[in-house]
Amino acid sequence: MNACIRAVVRAALARDLDIIGIRRGYTGLIAGDTVPLDRTAIRNVIHLGGTILETSRSPDFYTRDGRLRAAASIERMGLDGLILIGGEGTFQGASLLAADADTAALVGVPGSIDNDIYGTDYCIGFDTAANCAVDAIDRIRDTARSHERLFFIEVMGRESGYLALEGGIAGGAEELVIPEEEVSVTQMSERIRGGFSIGKRSAIVVVAEGETPGISFHLADEVKKHLDLDSRVVVLGHLQRGGPPTLRDRVLGSLLGVTAVEALLDGRSGCMVGEVRGELAYTPLEETWQKKKPLDEDLRRVFTILSD
Amino acid sequence: MNACIRAVVRAALARDLDIIGIRRGYTGLIAGDTVPLDRTAIRNVIHLGGTILETSRSPDFYTRDGRLRAAASIERMGLDGLILIGGEGTFQGASLLAADADTAALVGVPGSIDNDIYGTDYCIGFDTAANCAVDAIDRIRDTARSHERLFFIEVMGRESGYLALEGGIAGGAEELVIPEEEVSVTQMSERIRGGFSIGKRSAIVVVAEGETPGISFHLADEVKKHLDLDSRVVVLGHLQRGGPPTLRDRVLGSLLGVTAVEALLDGRSGCMVGEVRGELAYTPLEETWQKKKPLDEDLRRVFTILSD
Amino acid sequence: MNACIRAVVRAALARDLDIIGIRRGYTGLIAGDTVPLDRTAIRNVIHLGGTILETSRSPDFYTRDGRLRAAASIERMGLDGLILIGGEGTFQGASLLAADADTAALVGVPGSIDNDIYGTDYCIGFDTAANCAVDAIDRIRDTARSHERLFFIEVMGRESGYLALEGGIAGGAEELVIPEEEVSVTQMSERIRGGFSIGKRSAIVVVAEGETPGISFHLADEVKKHLDLDSRVVVLGHLQRGGPPTLRDRVLGSLLGVTAVEALLDGRSGCMVGEVRGELAYTPLEETWQKKKPLDEDLRRVFTILSD
Amino acid sequence: MNACIRAVVRAALARDLDIIGIRRGYTGLIAGDTVPLDRTAIRNVIHLGGTILETSRSPDFYTRDGRLRAAASIERMGLDGLILIGGEGTFQGASLLAADADTAALVGVPGSIDNDIYGTDYCIGFDTAANCAVDAIDRIRDTARSHERLFFIEVMGRESGYLALEGGIAGGAEELVIPEEEVSVTQMSERIRGGFSIGKRSAIVVVAEGETPGISFHLADEVKKHLDLDSRVVVLGHLQRGGPPTLRDRVLGSLLGVTAVEALLDGRSGCMVGEVRGELAYTPLEETWQKKKPLDEDLRRVFTILSD
Repeated sequence: MNACIRAVVRAALARDLDIIGIRRGYTGLIAGDTVPLDRTAIRNVIHLGGTILETSRSPDFYTRDGRLRAAASIERMGLDGLILIGGEGTFQGASLLAADADTAALVGVPGSIDNDIYGTDYCIGFDTAANCAVDAIDRIRDTARSHERLFFIEVMGRESGYLALEGGIAGGAEELVIPEEEVSVTQMSERIRGGFSIGKRSAIVVVAEGETPGISFHLADEVKKHLDLDSRVVVLGHLQRGGPPTLRDRVLGSLLGVTAVEALLDGRSGCMVGEVRGELAYTPLEETWQKKKPLDEDLRRVFTILSD
Repeated sequence: MNACIRAVVRAALARDLDIIGIRRGYTGLIAGDTVPLDRTAIRNVIHLGGTILETSRSPDFYTRDGRLRAAASIERMGLDGLILIGGEGTFQGASLLAADADTAALVGVPGSIDNDIYGTDYCIGFDTAANCAVDAIDRIRDTARSHERLFFIEVMGRESGYLALEGGIAGGAEELVIPEEEVSVTQMSERIRGGFSIGKRSAIVVVAEGETPGISFHLADEVKKHLDLDSRVVVLGHLQRGGPPTLRDRVLGSLLGVTAVEALLDGRSGCMVGEVRGELAYTPLEETWQKKKPLDEDLRRVFTILSD
Repeated sequence: MNACIRAVVRAALARDLDIIGIRRGYTGLIAGDTVPLDRTAIRNVIHLGGTILETSRSPDFYTRDGRLRAAASIERMGLDGLILIGGEGTFQGASLLAADADTAALVGVPGSIDNDIYGTDYCIGFDTAANCAVDAIDRIRDTARSHERLFFIEVMGRESGYLALEGGIAGGAEELVIPEEEVSVTQMSERIRGGFSIGKRSAIVVVAEGETPGISFHLADEVKKHLDLDSRVVVLGHLQRGGPPTLRDRVLGSLLGVTAVEALLDGRSGCMVGEVRGELAYTPLEETWQKKKPLDEDLRRVFTILSD
Repeated sequence: MNACIRAVVRAALARDLDIIGIRRGYTGLIAGDTVPLDRTAIRNVIHLGGTILETSRSPDFYTRDGRLRAAASIERMGLDGLILIGGEGTFQGASLLAADADTAALVGVPGSIDNDIYGTDYCIGFDTAANCAVDAIDRIRDTARSHERLFFIEVMGRESGYLALEGGIAGGAEELVIPEEEVSVTQMSERIRGGFSIGKRSAIVVVAEGETPGISFHLADEVKKHLDLDSRVVVLGHLQRGGPPTLRDRVLGSLLGVTAVEALLDGRSGCMVGEVRGELAYTPLEETWQKKKPLDEDLRRVFTILSD
């Protein structure tokens, strides 16, 4: 995120635009809680996890009244354009704001470790989170060699299995539990049993947490009924939200930050900038949260071949 | 571990000793399951997590009969001395073996990520596992800044709170839940409430898993009854057993590996080599598991001062 | 690389193909130096840096005689198809081999940390190497804050500035020295002086080593003539060739490995599989080394905006 | 360093002391350049590399006049005690200050990545820097397997070989070039040749930079005259000064920070707090820079055995 904020600021300064930062998302927008975003503010932040502008939930913004107060605040601050870095919730909010009020131009930048936003192949934050998952699987692998054991590694992913899928391919996992697919514990147990029968010493199951963080402990109990194996559970949770961002996230964030500023200058509004098939793409904000981003078919197939 | 195995081999070769490796611990000892340990076998292993000799549980070795078969196997292989890298269970087994049979000289080297072995200040594996915990807390900290939230980070530590204590100091945690101390959820909740009242945005609780991996989810529910705060849980579990070993673990493993070989050559038996207050120390194997290693008082006090 | 080898093996086994590994590249091909590549061989290798098949230079293969011996060896081994993971040199060799002899089908997979192969947007190994450069810049940044200093960080990149460019964007560097562009030490010094005059405390110059590893020490001396500043030099060199591969490299390697097997089964030969603009692409082997892959224009522009 | 600053602040607050931070070392002391050090200032800094108080060289402080101005500044600020985190230069300065003026109580805390300060077994910063060196050697090892090659890895260490020694043990290096010992390129080349003759594929030479950063390129040229081998050079330089501190550095910094505050309260002055053989130790400031800290004999011997 910080790489993106930095890019927005530098791109704005390069065009002699005035720019300020809104703290804590829509909460700060309503309250007019701002920080100056000059060269100094963005010095030495590109490598920091999290975001220097902080985040929050804003229940107020879910109400029409809250959004009208936000629009008033935008007018008071004299903003011509607003760049919103966030995910489905952020863009849904922006769509509603645009419907409720004739306000500043709105341009979105996709940031989501779940990589679940329609209109971009990758979201800022995904690569960092996925590498965190891979590092976890690597560490498990070191001990997995020695024991006949089953490991459950629970990653984030509320409605999307991207993290689990790419993490599972890169980590060399055996099984995948993702929101897009029904899980049969019986079949999974049978496949694991089969793997052990041809010489595997351990099996790694990558689980997207879905709506129930900690669900892997439950899954482990279920599998135990079918397979007489020791299970170990790792729950990564918010680990994946932190840590120094990877190259890909920083480069993507930098590119989309510059693009967002130029989109505003080009007169665009109500859209999200993204990268689709290697090209910059502009998607109407409504589509970003109304359309469901499908799993990558090729990668799903690769996982099946590699985990066999 | 591998740094230690490598050191044992190199030290043995330097003294023109014959050396072989026993695979999978006592299971392999009983079965005579060995691998040659020459220069080639230990090349490029110092940076690998886990152990090239693998580990296992050996129910057989818990029986007198199993130990007599192990003693017979030792005689069959013609071993004069045995170097055992492990923890309480390993050394208890070695004590029983020595009691049951007149067998080879036995020298132990302390390997335990829990750092719970009496007779050495640090065990091989602890520093790596503790740095893994610190890395996890750092990542959590990146997001902790933005939200009013409580984070539970569950580390290993069945009977010992060392990992949680040092990890908590180094990670800057607010609360500690360790086997050595009773926890009052009420008091913990009050302290956390107090922290928030003086401006903290988040609190990090480091929890030693004790005998119930996953216990943090339960703790989070309990605290929720006292504090109206969102909680997030991370369970590191076996993550801490893997990954490339740290400098300290490799240097300690190398030093103790060389020392173990020299101990055998000096005619020592029935003892564990360790490092106490910066000096090499030899502790009777019985004491290593019969005596309880206390938490470091100074560090416990430092935690209290720093977390205040 | 190992992720790709693993994918090739798994994809081949899934189609009931026989497969063997050639050790040490063309040297091993001429010598018939092979290893079995079954399930066991590729277990627990996906996270290892380097390649389990090893590499070498093969002066013999540069001669027609050498290539004819290679063709004879291919026939002796009864190979129908050959999958070659490598860079320009590898593919040039393959082109020559195909010209010299009617031999097995040849399919290339692009592996190059310099990312300098025409016919694919990214090569296997680039993301890992570039993240290594970013990590280095991050570490420098930690101390850069405190001193008025100039840092030169020398990365790989013989004829291509990709590593320096993406590493420089992601690391937030001030200056870029790459093979594609002439460097004026005078102008660079002036820009750096300008940065210090508006409050910067340090400047980071990312240098592609080009044909002269260690050139940064020379550059530092040159700049010193214009600017009275302390300089510090870091030369990453082969650091960037090792370390656990990143998610992107493993996923790309897995995808291209599967694709290469399927390309052979589809009757393709004399081509390299790659990914261009998010789509699988097949490029004649000749083009991969005859055509020069240009720097990404967008990213070059982003660097200029961000480093200003 | 930041862990230590945080510990000083927390320990001071726990005793109801007033505390301020001096920015940029002696430069800031003379200028009275201070920052408030309250709970907020030290929140979320424990994991940052570098130091929040920044550092600088102070030529002024090398003069008697400069030190008298520092003493006047101390009196003006009303300081009763001063905690100095630094190395030989810092403590030599402090000794001179105490000789020149009747000033506040002075207590030192050893911070040096070279680990070259007499009066403590380990200095804050060493473990982080040494782990950085080990990580570098690990990465080199990944490629070293495949080629017959010589690698030079240059680490810091102006007058002390600690970093090279412990890094070399932990990295499994073959040769050591340190300031404490004369190097014979001829003998080194012979030993390397011997290693290759018994099957080694590569050799890693760890070089302390001494007074000539970049010296490894020169060494590589010298060895080339004796051995017909490709050499590759990595110069870590200031890489080792950055990055998130390790557990050991943070725990040591925390412990010594608390101890420094308590030393002042106990009426101590003119001493450095350290840890010797696992016990807190207080060493007169003069001794810390007048006495030479010897290399650890045991570890030197271990290196010889392991690298053989």
